[in-house]
Amino acid sequence: MPDEDGFSGRAGGAAPTGGEARAAIDYGPLERRLGYFLRRAQIAVFRDFFASFAAFDIRPAQYSVLTVVECNPGLKQTEVGDALGIKRANLVPMIDELEACGLVRRDPAPNDKRGYALNLTAAGNDLVRDLHAVAEQHELGIAAAVGCGTNRRLLGELSRLAEMGAGDAESD
Amino acid sequence: MPDEDGFSGRAGGAAPTGGEARAAIDYGPLERRLGYFLRRAQIAVFRDFFASFAAFDIRPAQYSVLTVVECNPGLKQTEVGDALGIKRANLVPMIDELEACGLVRRDPAPNDKRGYALNLTAAGNDLVRDLHAVAEQHELGIAAAVGCGTNRRLLGELSRLAEMGAGDAESD
Repeated sequence: MPDEDGFSGRAGGAAPTGGEARAAIDYGPLERRLGYFLRRAQIAVFRDFFASFAAFDIRPAQYSVLTVVECNPGLKQTEVGDALGIKRANLVPMIDELEACGLVRRDPAPNDKRGYALNLTAAGNDLVRDLHAVAEQHELGIAAAVGCGTNRRLLGELSRLAEMGAGDAESD
Repeated sequence: MPDEDGFSGRAGGAAPTGGEARAAIDYGPLERRLGYFLRRAQIAVFRDFFASFAAFDIRPAQYSVLTVVECNPGLKQTEVGDALGIKRANLVPMIDELEACGLVRRDPAPNDKRGYALNLTAAGNDLVRDLHAVAEQHELGIAAAVGCGTNRRLLGELSRLAEMGAGDAESD
């Protein structure tokens, strides 16, 4: 899995790999960096997600695409990309793959000769229903770990943080 | 920049790219998925970070490595990787690059013929001091946007979430 910044997920305290004990790592100003903890938390939650979804061979972004197409049948490919902030260069092969697996169908888009309207196939609909059930369990596990109230509050706060970057999403 | 899941950062509500107005996107169960919002928030904060650090050409993971080496002089390369959860395959070229830029020095590790002890050069120390000042401003901007109390609480909650994944960091 390509990893934009190389973090593979150990968080907070370091565990020596050898038998030799050593003093705890001093993280200095990193302990005050929100971006650092966001990245570590995201990796931990994604790892947990991958484990839950292992039987389905589905990545988080694919799950997001299937869900948005399910909830917005006939959405144009570009609109799915905009909605999820997925670049065209990444979205096209992803849709190719989902289409090849028989999960998504590219239909002609009304009033747009070059665009595609995306729809789930019957198999796609069946799969996404199963995925939601697994994701719901995964989510309950996290909520149990952090507490339901904290989980709910986190969703709101993270959503606001994410909005910070919404204005210039096209720029990269 | 390779991106493990293709998200490029638009969060929450979709903005149509054409002139044509369309109904708001229904995100369905994604609205309840912590992983989804973690990823969007992380991308937004990293984008802001990249903008702040543009003059330095430094990535978040490089900043983390420089900080950990600064705070733990003589730390072995493998210990830096463990501390930050960076895989060896990603860490070695990163240290190569920092060494080539004259920021980090690989010294012989005491009691370990094959390992390296990492230290910042004088230039590395100067740079990391400047980076901390910029990062502190970046952090103040986020704290102002979300509120100081929320920011502090988020750090704690994200740190606990990150710990969820700490147990199996070696496995991927």
